[in-house]
Amino acid sequence: MSGPADRLDALVRPRSIAVVGASADPDKLNGRIVRFLTEKGYPGAIYPINPKVAEILGYRCYPSLAAVPGPVDLAVIGLSAAQALDAVREAGAKGVGAVLVFASGFAELGTEGRKAQETLARVAREAGVRLCGPNSVGVVNAFDRVVATFSQVGNNPVNPGPLALVTQSGAIGTVVNTLANRRGIGLGYLVHTGNEADITVVDAIAAITADERVRVMCAYLEGIRDGGGLCRIADALLEQGRPIVAVKVGRSETGARAVASHTGSLAAEDRVFDDVARQHGIVRARNESHMLDLAEGFAYCELPAEGGVGLITQSGGTAVLMADRAEELGVAVPTLSAHTQQALRGVLPPYASFGNPVDASMQAVADPSLLGKGLAQMLGDPNVAVGIVWLQHMDAKADALVDMFADLKRIGKPFIVAWAAAPLQALERLRKHGVCVMESADRAVDVAHGLISFARARRLRLESGPRPAAPPPAGVRPPHSGVVPTMRAAGLLAAHGIPLTRTLLAHSAAQAVEQAKTLAPQPVALKVESTDLPHKTEVGGVRLGLREAAGVSQAYDDILASVLAAAPAANIEGVVVQQMQDAGLELVVGLRKDPSFGMVAMLGIGGVFVEAYRDVTFRRLPVRPQEARAMVADLRGQRLLGVFRGRAAIDIEALVKLLCAVSDFGVASDAWLEELDLNPIIARSDTVIAVDWLLIAKQEDAT
Amino acid sequence: MSGPADRLDALVRPRSIAVVGASADPDKLNGRIVRFLTEKGYPGAIYPINPKVAEILGYRCYPSLAAVPGPVDLAVIGLSAAQALDAVREAGAKGVGAVLVFASGFAELGTEGRKAQETLARVAREAGVRLCGPNSVGVVNAFDRVVATFSQVGNNPVNPGPLALVTQSGAIGTVVNTLANRRGIGLGYLVHTGNEADITVVDAIAAITADERVRVMCAYLEGIRDGGGLCRIADALLEQGRPIVAVKVGRSETGARAVASHTGSLAAEDRVFDDVARQHGIVRARNESHMLDLAEGFAYCELPAEGGVGLITQSGGTAVLMADRAEELGVAVPTLSAHTQQALRGVLPPYASFGNPVDASMQAVADPSLLGKGLAQMLGDPNVAVGIVWLQHMDAKADALVDMFADLKRIGKPFIVAWAAAPLQALERLRKHGVCVMESADRAVDVAHGLISFARARRLRLESGPRPAAPPPAGVRPPHSGVVPTMRAAGLLAAHGIPLTRTLLAHSAAQAVEQAKTLAPQPVALKVESTDLPHKTEVGGVRLGLREAAGVSQAYDDILASVLAAAPAANIEGVVVQQMQDAGLELVVGLRKDPSFGMVAMLGIGGVFVEAYRDVTFRRLPVRPQEARAMVADLRGQRLLGVFRGRAAIDIEALVKLLCAVSDFGVASDAWLEELDLNPIIARSDTVIAVDWLLIAKQEDAT
Repeated sequence: MSGPADRLDALVRPRSIAVVGASADPDKLNGRIVRFLTEKGYPGAIYPINPKVAEILGYRCYPSLAAVPGPVDLAVIGLSAAQALDAVREAGAKGVGAVLVFASGFAELGTEGRKAQETLARVAREAGVRLCGPNSVGVVNAFDRVVATFSQVGNNPVNPGPLALVTQSGAIGTVVNTLANRRGIGLGYLVHTGNEADITVVDAIAAITADERVRVMCAYLEGIRDGGGLCRIADALLEQGRPIVAVKVGRSETGARAVASHTGSLAAEDRVFDDVARQHGIVRARNESHMLDLAEGFAYCELPAEGGVGLITQSGGTAVLMADRAEELGVAVPTLSAHTQQALRGVLPPYASFGNPVDASMQAVADPSLLGKGLAQMLGDPNVAVGIVWLQHMDAKADALVDMFADLKRIGKPFIVAWAAAPLQALERLRKHGVCVMESADRAVDVAHGLISFARARRLRLESGPRPAAPPPAGVRPPHSGVVPTMRAAGLLAAHGIPLTRTLLAHSAAQAVEQAKTLAPQPVALKVESTDLPHKTEVGGVRLGLREAAGVSQAYDDILASVLAAAPAANIEGVVVQQMQDAGLELVVGLRKDPSFGMVAMLGIGGVFVEAYRDVTFRRLPVRPQEARAMVADLRGQRLLGVFRGRAAIDIEALVKLLCAVSDFGVASDAWLEELDLNPIIARSDTVIAVDWLLIAKQEDAT
Repeated sequence: MSGPADRLDALVRPRSIAVVGASADPDKLNGRIVRFLTEKGYPGAIYPINPKVAEILGYRCYPSLAAVPGPVDLAVIGLSAAQALDAVREAGAKGVGAVLVFASGFAELGTEGRKAQETLARVAREAGVRLCGPNSVGVVNAFDRVVATFSQVGNNPVNPGPLALVTQSGAIGTVVNTLANRRGIGLGYLVHTGNEADITVVDAIAAITADERVRVMCAYLEGIRDGGGLCRIADALLEQGRPIVAVKVGRSETGARAVASHTGSLAAEDRVFDDVARQHGIVRARNESHMLDLAEGFAYCELPAEGGVGLITQSGGTAVLMADRAEELGVAVPTLSAHTQQALRGVLPPYASFGNPVDASMQAVADPSLLGKGLAQMLGDPNVAVGIVWLQHMDAKADALVDMFADLKRIGKPFIVAWAAAPLQALERLRKHGVCVMESADRAVDVAHGLISFARARRLRLESGPRPAAPPPAGVRPPHSGVVPTMRAAGLLAAHGIPLTRTLLAHSAAQAVEQAKTLAPQPVALKVESTDLPHKTEVGGVRLGLREAAGVSQAYDDILASVLAAAPAANIEGVVVQQMQDAGLELVVGLRKDPSFGMVAMLGIGGVFVEAYRDVTFRRLPVRPQEARAMVADLRGQRLLGVFRGRAAIDIEALVKLLCAVSDFGVASDAWLEELDLNPIIARSDTVIAVDWLLIAKQEDAT
């Protein structure tokens, strides 16, 4: 064991485990580990460490880690917070790969605890061991029968399978393990990262997914330290077709406050997480059962091609409920082709409906084979990416139905059986046959949506090739931090191809009049130029719609007088004269630092309504053209972008180009950029151009 | 049996049942009824009707209804569509109260079937019997062991209880029955209304809820014939504290299309259903399991007082998930009072969190009694209306926990136990103790939201007293149908107190100039007056912002010239001169006929964004002040109504007054009104006034 990758491997696939502080009482928390490992048949070496005991469950007990004869991959530390530090040092001396620290009493307790945790992390770093925890309930690798946890999970049967879970909540880990067991699907790995003094969820995901038996990576997240790392591993898995299905709590203001008090971590704006997760193919779940539904979908179904859902049911009412849910999620319910409808007429009664949803009619209660025949035809339709068949009860015919659905796997197109009030044995048998089954209509649609969304994100990623190299570093750092002067900012932005309205700086009324002439026939706006005054309107520093020389001259003088009165101490560098643009749709575009994900680009509908409806979308940099198009498509006010009340549709490609240029600028200036606001941008059919901008360089570090 | 109420009673609480077309084969669809009634121990008289058989399951068989010796409350008709007509006639002759028709082959098959159904309905009316169906799978009254269905329900044990279901989908009825059984909660009544040739869901709800043992009325709806009737019965139940919990499918465009093709009924705009349902205290569920969750909540919990949820958990992460969900649903998570926090510090470990959510800490895993102690304190907080306690597993301590939670019922404040991965016996025992338990965190929050919303709607209703009497019938019918001329419309609207900008009608440029002077110093707008031209802008018929005599005169001439060119055939009655209003927030208010609910009032944010974001809300007439305030509170763009970008908050009470005036007008003109649009309304801190209006009288009926 040498490199850090190997040492992460030592956490989740240890060939030998020492249990420091093992108790001889197998019911005590620190007595359970040896018991669980023994009961589950862990095949590696087990070394209980306890100077006061000779033997635990037949294993020789050692007085210290140093006394252990063989190499130790993982040291499970079942000692108190106070004793954990020495144990980590000893682990380092022994050459242990990773330590797992159960003790609580660290960052979750506030300032004192946070200091203790920093010390723990430093000691581990110095000792050269990777550390999971503190405040972790443990690690399970069901494939290799590693059950290094004191939780309820150890009482459950070990059930290796294609799902894995990394969680920041120990309680939820235990719950998901039980629920997966009840569903009869295996959870191959379960890692609770606890306080993440060293090993983060991202590290754990990397370590777990190195095992290719893991097909779906589930994650239960509260706060994300390493957003960039999460995106990188999600990208890699996306290309492999292995999804991350994540619950992320702290969506609301109340929730975010609770996360902060619970974990001490800074909550990113949830909308940013949501958008960036989608950008990287992470499938977001609402709660643990939705997460397991999606995970089952991915485990049992092939990834779909482009298209919508085909719905076939025994009940018209349920067909409607599924169509509702599909539309709500933006999943198409395409009308079936004439050819498919013809084929359906050949197998279903004449009073069935054939368009999509297909109502196989009450006849399908008496003869449920109609559902299979109909589904087979529907899956042949080129517009159907995922099939859903809904039925209820059918206890007497359950076995035949299971066989029928299992047989339809041969078609090779994903489908989901939504079986309400299903006989429990039928659910079990279907899952054994690898058929995805949900117990209600809308849950099936939710799963289909997950499959379609992930597959679409994957195609987008594969088609667009690797992320572009960083653009040339033309983002010259401005000499000062804080607001960058308008003309200098314009130069920096224009150098990256960001379209800005023509802007000149006047130092006198006469110069302003001359400049306004060069910008004619468009009217001009005059704005005071002062890096001390980011809010120019409030100090009377702005005059709009000026056309005539007298007006421009007067405006220049008025501005100086107003500003002098309102902000006598402000340093005024002049007045900018800007060419005004004809009216159009107002948009806002910007860059900002997200605490989890770093620099993100923002696009929103502007004007007075932006604050009321907050129609905005975010992407992590770099933003490539297809991602910029996806940003535009995210806006809820789509109708404003198209032909609207007689004005032509706005030039989407020009907007896409602007977004990419902003992204380039953000990548190039990442080292010094604090914030960029292009607000408003005027978008029309013939132009997309920023008419005002605020660029802020961050404070120089004291270092 | 005489009045129609009695005859509805005959459907759901029959004292004697005839089964017309009963088969001696107890497995055939029409052989099941006698079998089910016998097996379930139906205590009334059972009369199989079949001329070819002497006896079925020990019951004497009669050749016809007429031959039955005693009175018959309910005749179940197990004959084909073709034979059903005669059976209904015979039932009438026999004096039967109600018939239940299973046969399909009616309206669900299109035009021919619809005619057959109309004939069936007419025959039943003429025969003086109420009719359930056709195409119904049956009626169950578990209290009285009436199992008049051929569905799977007859194979389940009869389990009377506080829930009842009326459904327009037979399949869903069967599913809900099984799911309720699995949850161990009784479904007292189950009525599938089928094609509703006569008895509608509203009739069925009235008949069922006459039984006071029914505490929660569930409904699964596809299309609603009698929206007014639904509102009236919902109002009555609301006052009694008995909720209707309804799933209504057809929310989406695709879904609405599917409903139309499935039931032939016209789908109302879903948003109207949603708003009107809330107005009348109907609690809307997403799907059948959400419906059962809510129903369990109402069955086991007292109705809460005003307030939010108090959350206590074993897990910080789950606390956050619940807080997220609460905020999403608009449920407060109030900070606990200093007194409550002090009390919690007395019972929980020092490292717990006390604000709300309360994280009882990992200590509550070892000692789950902490959860009970904490919950008891939390329920004492005046701001907590509903408590939720979350825990997981605890298999070894399940019995003690059940007893602890059961004991907390004594506090008399509603609470929900959210128990993830619960031992199944614990769920069962809790329900037996009348404790509401859900198996996940967010489902518990959803239930709390339902309880709080219904209780709030009830208080609002009780506080506001009975619905007002109809206002004086000042809504004089205009002499013509179609667009009502501006000045006449203004007269009608102003008579009901709807504030309109001052408007005059000019027949010459000179007159327009004079009128503009009387409206000064405000500028005026000139608009062509012609009932042929509802869209005046498109024909060049509008000029805005006119201040000077020359401008007004010129505008008058320009308008006439433009309109003459664009619409030479239009009849022009002059040009209206309107006082323009200073800028403010643009709103739209209107009246329209909804196919289910009749006249509804609409309020929305106006301007160019209204079409893009569709921020609108509806209420059924009459709209009383507190309902008008609720409409205002429904708007998503709340921020636009308050102090916003330096302008003062708009005068909400003036807007409320306007909405009530519009409602009065709508009630008074219900007989002839087709549509009213006040668009825009200018809302400011000092005024709320309509500056344009379109009033349309409906076409006179040919009759």
